[in-house]
Amino acid sequence: MNLSPARARGILKELKFRDGFVVAVIRDFKTKDVLMTAMQNEQAVLKTLTTGLMYYWSRSRQKLWLKGERSGHYQHVRRVWVDCDGDVLLYDVAQVGAACHEGYRSCFYREVKKGKLITVLKRKFNPRDVYR
Amino acid sequence: MNLSPARARGILKELKFRDGFVVAVIRDFKTKDVLMTAMQNEQAVLKTLTTGLMYYWSRSRQKLWLKGERSGHYQHVRRVWVDCDGDVLLYDVAQVGAACHEGYRSCFYREVKKGKLITVLKRKFNPRDVYR
Repeated sequence: MNLSPARARGILKELKFRDGFVVAVIRDFKTKDVLMTAMQNEQAVLKTLTTGLMYYWSRSRQKLWLKGERSGHYQHVRRVWVDCDGDVLLYDVAQVGAACHEGYRSCFYREVKKGKLITVLKRKFNPRDVYR
Repeated sequence: MNLSPARARGILKELKFRDGFVVAVIRDFKTKDVLMTAMQNEQAVLKTLTTGLMYYWSRSRQKLWLKGERSGHYQHVRRVWVDCDGDVLLYDVAQVGAACHEGYRSCFYREVKKGKLITVLKRKFNPRDVYR
């Protein structure tokens, strides 16, 4: 996925940014596991579509965020879908390392089982080693 | 998925509602296709976990919304995961009919192909026949 800026802007026109944002749902392109969700503003979508790497808007840091910039855990975009309302994008990616800053492959590492929230994945890395 | 109200409230305590809402990502439990996303307030999560049917908060109608109440296209909950931040829930469901009000199985019926947004699914129903 390396669209020209002109093509990427054409896709942007089809989107409806609510208060400046769309929701990005990120999936492993092989397993179809949902890895994470995050917010994207126009600039993040544009950078994602033109570079083929996932960019988000960090609400906590109030800045554009290249996923993997600190951890090396980049997400290479393989396929992109847009939902009916144009305010959610579904991305299939090749995930380097693990998606979750807590050290798990997916942010959805806890499942409701017998009425309780249980950790069902094993840690891939120790966050302290990656985010210093 | 039919939790007691007490168990469901225990899960609610683990969630972080931003401005009153969490994001729900809905997946077909067999194919792992992402069908839709929607917003849930506390009441919607509580009703979902205790009844086993997906409830959302309708922003356009400003009311609790049982998915399928008009179309008959109910979503029966099979599994539930919670993300690291506690503000996104991933649901695996058995989808009756089709998830999208536009008549498609999934709301993500358009894909970015060669720089353009292309409809890649076939309609399952005509919205005019279902939503009168």
